[in-house]
Amino acid sequence: ALLEANGNLSCRCAKTTRVFIPPRKYSSIEVWPVGSSCRRLEVVIKLKSLERLCVDPDTPWVKKLLQDLPNLRKKEAPH
Amino acid sequence: ALLEANGNLSCRCAKTTRVFIPPRKYSSIEVWPVGSSCRRLEVVIKLKSLERLCVDPDTPWVKKLLQDLPNLRKKEAPH
Repeated sequence: ALLEANGNLSCRCAKTTRVFIPPRKYSSIEVWPVGSSCRRLEVVIKLKSLERLCVDPDTPWVKKLLQDLPNLRKKEAPH
Repeated sequence: ALLEANGNLSCRCAKTTRVFIPPRKYSSIEVWPVGSSCRRLEVVIKLKSLERLCVDPDTPWVKKLLQDLPNLRKKEAPH
């Protein structure tokens, strides 16, 4: 499981992936800022399959995703 | 309830608030990009009380929060 409580720290991500996930595959992005209970930034992507994946916040595509969040649009089918 | 399914569109936020929420009050931020099932950006803040609040993505403090996400740190107690 990629999500688990982590001993004395309450981090959510035991492992992270750097593999690119195309926007059409996920519904939302959860960001856990650095705080006293987990001393690193965590980014969790919720797939449409409802699975959650922890992604590495230092990977270029994730950095760019975070920067683009305010304007992010997913590809839509024509209508 | 601020969260509800929304007729033909699957949006999560029936209402949003513009009221500032200090970072120490929340644990994470959920961002739902614009997509075919909900045609607006949605930003949901998860309070430490586990309550979720939909915030207006066009409000200045929320815009700034989204921009700062990659580097956001919450105030920590000294250690």
